[in-house]
Amino acid sequence: MGTSVFGEKEFLACCGSTKFAQEMASAAPFATYPQAVEAARDIWFNKVDVNGWLEAFAAHPEIGEQSTALATATDFTLQELYEANTRYRQKFGFVFLICASGRSTPEILAELKKRYPNRPIVEFEIAAKEQMKIIELRLSKLFTTEESDASKSREQWNA
Amino acid sequence: MGTSVFGEKEFLACCGSTKFAQEMASAAPFATYPQAVEAARDIWFNKVDVNGWLEAFAAHPEIGEQSTALATATDFTLQELYEANTRYRQKFGFVFLICASGRSTPEILAELKKRYPNRPIVEFEIAAKEQMKIIELRLSKLFTTEESDASKSREQWNA
Repeated sequence: MGTSVFGEKEFLACCGSTKFAQEMASAAPFATYPQAVEAARDIWFNKVDVNGWLEAFAAHPEIGEQSTALATATDFTLQELYEANTRYRQKFGFVFLICASGRSTPEILAELKKRYPNRPIVEFEIAAKEQMKIIELRLSKLFTTEESDASKSREQWNA
Repeated sequence: MGTSVFGEKEFLACCGSTKFAQEMASAAPFATYPQAVEAARDIWFNKVDVNGWLEAFAAHPEIGEQSTALATATDFTLQELYEANTRYRQKFGFVFLICASGRSTPEILAELKKRYPNRPIVEFEIAAKEQMKIIELRLSKLFTTEESDASKSREQWNA
């Protein structure tokens, strides 16, 4: 293919803001993953408004429900993380967001405790930056999947 | 009296965030206006979350509907302000907020145009700071009214 053929549905799976998905679909196709990331950064930080940020945050499960990165957690740590996340949500009005990739549960818990005293507006922007990291990861998976799909179809075509 | 006897209703008229009004009512009574402002600043910037900020912003009329400070506006300037405000709301998802006290309509319009290119998160924080100025003005009126009411009741008592 050479260029991506993703639509709104795929971009909405990367980031739960409708505006983000629409703008990405308008900007598509992207010849490369870095070009998709560049467009995504511009859309997420400059075009999606604060309501869109909240919409995207609301599309995430509570951190206790995320199975990834929590496989090694003891019941005690998980319970503590669950309670800390509840307090976080009560203070800030949205779920604790962190790009959990490569981080252990105790690391995530420590980060949550470190960020908790922040002013709401400061934490809002940190959460948006974490969301951008998550978008990059998901876009990368999208492009990887597309390539392997392309390989697959090449294989099928060759067969 | 010496101390303020305001409740949630009066504080909600200063700022349309329910959380703000509740926290102010809990922190009341305030012996002086500066003490009320100090409490209000802490509550608005540190305790009201971003949803509460949006709730407070939504309680404001569109700037074209505000009669104060627009008395001297020509029809042309008013129309331009109205259109600029519509574009602003489309980009940011909330009404253009400015402490209009002492500013002419052309000054307000110039400020709107200057702020329009801002990133949504930057503009969100500027709007919150303008909201704080509005809160201070309204609190000041509340305290002034209370004093004149107190004078009035003294007058009535003396009569």
